[in-house]
Amino acid sequence: MATTPEPTTRVRRIPELQRHDRRELDAVLDAGLVAHVGIVDDAQPYVLPLAYVRDGDRLLLHGSTGSRLLRALAAGAPTCATVTLLDGLVVARSAFESSMQYRCAMVFGRCTPVEDAEVALGRFTDGLLPARTSEVRPSRPKEVAATLILELPLDHWSVKVSDDDPEDPDEDLAGDAWAGVLPIETRYGLPRPAGDLRAGIGVPASVRQLEGQSITPPGAGGG
Amino acid sequence: MATTPEPTTRVRRIPELQRHDRRELDAVLDAGLVAHVGIVDDAQPYVLPLAYVRDGDRLLLHGSTGSRLLRALAAGAPTCATVTLLDGLVVARSAFESSMQYRCAMVFGRCTPVEDAEVALGRFTDGLLPARTSEVRPSRPKEVAATLILELPLDHWSVKVSDDDPEDPDEDLAGDAWAGVLPIETRYGLPRPAGDLRAGIGVPASVRQLEGQSITPPGAGGG
Repeated sequence: MATTPEPTTRVRRIPELQRHDRRELDAVLDAGLVAHVGIVDDAQPYVLPLAYVRDGDRLLLHGSTGSRLLRALAAGAPTCATVTLLDGLVVARSAFESSMQYRCAMVFGRCTPVEDAEVALGRFTDGLLPARTSEVRPSRPKEVAATLILELPLDHWSVKVSDDDPEDPDEDLAGDAWAGVLPIETRYGLPRPAGDLRAGIGVPASVRQLEGQSITPPGAGGG
Repeated sequence: MATTPEPTTRVRRIPELQRHDRRELDAVLDAGLVAHVGIVDDAQPYVLPLAYVRDGDRLLLHGSTGSRLLRALAAGAPTCATVTLLDGLVVARSAFESSMQYRCAMVFGRCTPVEDAEVALGRFTDGLLPARTSEVRPSRPKEVAATLILELPLDHWSVKVSDDDPEDPDEDLAGDAWAGVLPIETRYGLPRPAGDLRAGIGVPASVRQLEGQSITPPGAGGG
């Protein structure tokens, strides 16, 4: 199902970059934190950054019941959720051949509010900070009610991975210009305690395990 | 003009995060590399990651004449270009209050192909790698013709900056859970020469000056 060719998921531009393995989709989605989600309102597209977590065969998108566009998403408007991981600048011997290394996943479909809101909020929390739910109090019913978690099934999607060196024509290879890749790295830094943190409360395991870690390890989505 | 309230640019959700100073827009746009650009085709939104550079009062978006959706953008379909810089995870004392630090700019409007394609390609190249055009040969007419650079005027936009500590209710402040921010840092790494680089060609100034540099310095778009 996931790789059924659909009009919306066939990559027309540079099709050789497309990947068809579901594991490659998961690798890209699992390395990202924010999806850019498209929604149309009166013929005007809006692109909203939404925190997300992959939970099996669905994306969980986190929003608030207070947002008009999110309510439209929840009502089932067609959407596209795009996750892009930028891996580097491809510096070719000409301006024309210069480009970027990236991994990009697009998921098409319609969202629905999750039926298991409390479970989904936990999955969401632990998806960002593993086992964080074990360190905090349970969510209160009014908190669950005020949180809008949408699910988008991973049925229709496309993945594109650009991880090549620059490809210059022969006549440029003979020239004096440098060519290569300038990598881009995204990492978690050192945790900063809140100004109102009570004395004696140390950095918990959920945060400590991410400190200094690469968020989007190069090649995680490559193949 | 830039800050005229428009239906599309008024932030309804958490309006206190909205910034109205054009310099804040520029700071966010100048720190990013990829915009997520929305386009509607037959009621289906698509969200495309496109490399961009701000050039004064316009965004230059880089594409190819071979892309159907980019041709639709070039034809003036309404669009939304969103640039999001993710600055950290806000770890609150409850799952509910946890969130993210980010800077987000949305630009609304219609694109047109640039009239000064050769100049714009140079601006684009130097916008990513300062003075790179002085290190490579001039673009050839056929290369300029095959490159689609779109411009989107910076007339209608909104900027949202979330840079606060977690804000927990009083009853949670007394608890034992840690709270703080886990920063996210994006940097350029060490340049890797292309496999086919001729011996004796060193890393040029355009690349060397970015090596190890932070791409989205925290606070660049904050206020």
